Amino acid sequence: MLEQFKVSKEDEVRVSAEALNKTVREIFERLGVPADQAAEGAHVLSMTDLRGVDSHGVSNMLRNYVEWFRNGRLNPDPNWTILRETPAIASIDGDAGLGIIIGPAAMRIAIEKARNVGVGVVSMRNSGHLGAAGHLAMLAAEQNMIGVCMSAAGPRVLPTHGAEPRLGTNPIAYAAPTRNEPPVLFDIATTVIAENKLRLAHRLGSELEPNWIARLDGSPITERAIAPPREQYQLLPLGGTREHGSHKGYGLGLWTEIMSTFLAGGVPSMLDPTQHFKHHFVAYDIEAFTDLDSYFDQMDAMLRRLQGTPTAPGQDRVIYPGVLEHEEEIHRREHGIPFHPEVIQWFESITAELGVDPLEIMAVTRSEEGLPPAR
Amino acid sequence: MLEQFKVSKEDEVRVSAEALNKTVREIFERLGVPADQAAEGAHVLSMTDLRGVDSHGVSNMLRNYVEWFRNGRLNPDPNWTILRETPAIASIDGDAGLGIIIGPAAMRIAIEKARNVGVGVVSMRNSGHLGAAGHLAMLAAEQNMIGVCMSAAGPRVLPTHGAEPRLGTNPIAYAAPTRNEPPVLFDIATTVIAENKLRLAHRLGSELEPNWIARLDGSPITERAIAPPREQYQLLPLGGTREHGSHKGYGLGLWTEIMSTFLAGGVPSMLDPTQHFKHHFVAYDIEAFTDLDSYFDQMDAMLRRLQGTPTAPGQDRVIYPGVLEHEEEIHRREHGIPFHPEVIQWFESITAELGVDPLEIMAVTRSEEGLPPAR
Repeated sequence: MLEQFKVSKEDEVRVSAEALNKTVREIFERLGVPADQAAEGAHVLSMTDLRGVDSHGVSNMLRNYVEWFRNGRLNPDPNWTILRETPAIASIDGDAGLGIIIGPAAMRIAIEKARNVGVGVVSMRNSGHLGAAGHLAMLAAEQNMIGVCMSAAGPRVLPTHGAEPRLGTNPIAYAAPTRNEPPVLFDIATTVIAENKLRLAHRLGSELEPNWIARLDGSPITERAIAPPREQYQLLPLGGTREHGSHKGYGLGLWTEIMSTFLAGGVPSMLDPTQHFKHHFVAYDIEAFTDLDSYFDQMDAMLRRLQGTPTAPGQDRVIYPGVLEHEEEIHRREHGIPFHPEVIQWFESITAELGVDPLEIMAVTRSEEGLPPAR
Repeated sequence: MLEQFKVSKEDEVRVSAEALNKTVREIFERLGVPADQAAEGAHVLSMTDLRGVDSHGVSNMLRNYVEWFRNGRLNPDPNWTILRETPAIASIDGDAGLGIIIGPAAMRIAIEKARNVGVGVVSMRNSGHLGAAGHLAMLAAEQNMIGVCMSAAGPRVLPTHGAEPRLGTNPIAYAAPTRNEPPVLFDIATTVIAENKLRLAHRLGSELEPNWIARLDGSPITERAIAPPREQYQLLPLGGTREHGSHKGYGLGLWTEIMSTFLAGGVPSMLDPTQHFKHHFVAYDIEAFTDLDSYFDQMDAMLRRLQGTPTAPGQDRVIYPGVLEHEEEIHRREHGIPFHPEVIQWFESITAELGVDPLEIMAVTRSEEGLPPAR
C-alpha cells in the first residue's frame, strides 16, 4: 500500500484477529443475522483486515453494514434463490443479503460446479456490498482452483471524457494457488485509486498524486492536492487520462458491469441507482484442464522468476500480487491489526449500544524500540 | 485511435476488404495452408483492418506470418488435439498452427459448450499469434453470447519496479451482443500502449506521451519523445508508474498469463521464450443465465445512457468500447482500408514472389473535396 494510506504508527491501536472476529460476529448477531452467517461475515472482515486490505475491512465498511441492517436496506436473514441453473452455471437473486455473507455461499456453488465439469460460473443480483472481492477469489484458490470475482456497484466513476459518473468502482479480483510461494491474489478497483482508499486518505489528511481524481466538471486535477471530501471530486478510470489509457480502465469497469449485472439479469446502477449490487463468481478447476503437479511446478518457478527480476533505479524489490497481503497477514497475526483511534471509538459506542462485550485491545502505541507486550 | 497512430491522408493507399481478403487468402494458400483455413485467416485479418485495428491487421502482422510459415516456426496444416475435455471446458494443443486460423476453431468449441451447459472455456497452448483478440470475442457475441479472449506471449513488458521484461503485452478482449446499438467490443494490451502501436508510431515518426515507455534500465521516460526503434525501450504495464496504478496493469497481464498459459498446461515465456503462444477463450450463453429480451432491453438502454453522458470541458463525445470500430467498419466498407505505401510495396513484392495476382488498389490519395472514385 502507498504511504498515503497507512495509519501513522503514533496513532494506531492494535487488535488481534480473534478479538475482532468475536466482536464483529456478536454485532452481526445482535442485528438479526443467524449465527453461522454472522460467523461467515466476521471471518471475511477479519481476513480482509489481516491481509492489510484496510480499505475493505472494518474501518470503512462495518459501520455502513450496521447502518444498512438497521435501516432495512439489507436483509439480515435472506432467503436467496437460484433463478436459472445448469451443471456449469447458476444465476442467483440474493434477497438483499449482505454480500460478504452470501457471496461466499455463491462462490462455493461455483467451486462445486467446477469440481464436476471443470468450471463454475455464478452470477448474483440483489446483494449488499461484497467486501474485498479478492477474498472470494481466494476461496477457490484454497481448493486448487483459479478463482475470479467481479462486482458492480455505483454509479461513481466517470467514463473517459465524461462529466457524470456512470460505473461503479467495479472491482476485478483473481487468485491462483501455489505450492511453496505465497498465493497469487489480485484485487483492484478499475479506477486509478480505490474509492475507499481516497476516503482513508481524506481521513488521514494525505496528499493525492496528479490525475488521480477529476473536478466535478470531469476535468482531471493535474496537480498534487490534499485529499478532498467525497462530494468535491469525481473518480477517474484506471489510466486517468485518455492518453494514458483511461479508455482501458473504463472498458474494464464496463466489463465488470456486464459480467456482474447483465449475466445476473440485473439493472445497471447508471439506469437505477437504487439497485442493490451484482456479482460474478468463477472457479476453474485446474486439474480438469491440465496436470496439477506440473501446474504447481511452473507456477512456483514463474513466481520466483518474477521476484528475481532486476530492479529499476531507485527500486528495491519486484513482487507479484498477493505477496504483500501474505506478508501482512503473517505480521498482523503476530502483532495485531492496527486501527485509527476513531475506529476504536466507534467500536466502543456500537458495542455499548448493542450490549456486546467491548472490543479487546492488544496495544495502544508502538514504541521506537519495538512492540510493547499485548495486554 | 490517437492521432499519433493514423496514416496521414496524403500518403494513404486504399484497398477494399474484398480485394484484401482475396490476396491474403491466396498468399496463405501458396504457403501451404489448406483452402478453408486460408479463408479463415484472411477473413480475420480483413475484419481486423475493416474495424480500424491497424496494429493487428496486415500492415504489422502479415509479413511476420509469411516469414514464420516459411522458416518453419509455424505449421501451415496443423493437427491440433484436445488434451482434456468436459462438457464445459477443453484444453487444446495447437500443433504450432497460426492463432488467427486455429483460434476461431477453439472459440467455436467454447460456443458449442456454452450452448449446452451455459459456459464454455477453451485453453490452447502451442499456437502462433492470435491476431486481434477482440475478433475472437466477437464470434461469441454473434451467437448471442458474451465472448472473452486472452492471449499470452512475450516476454516484453516490465513488471512494476522491474528492469527486465517478464510478461507479454497479454491482451484482454471481450464482446457483448446488442439489439440496436453497436456491439460492445473491447480489446486492449495490458500495457500503457500496445506494442504494435509503438511500432506504427515509429514507422510514422510520431511523438509519444510521457510515461508511455521506459528506458532499458526500467526507469520511465517522463518527457515527450519521438517513438524510438523497438530495441531502445521497454514496455510499461497499464498505469505506467506505481503511483498511477502500474501494479494493476501488471496484475492484469499476469492474470492473462495464468488463464492462457497455466490452464493450457503451457510454460510461461519468462521461463522459456522459445515457447509458442497460449490463449484462453470463453463463451457465456446469456440465455442460460437470464431472459435474452430483457438483456437486450437493458444493454441498449445502458449504451444509450453512456453515449448521452455530459462531456468534460474540451471533449465532444463519450463513447463505449466498440463504437469507433463499428463506425470505422462502415466507413472502410464504403471507402476502403487505408495503407501506408510501404505496406503496398511489400504486397507488390510478396505477390510477385509467390505468383499471386497483385493486390487490387482502390485509390492512392484522398483529396480535400472528397474521395476520388474507386478505380
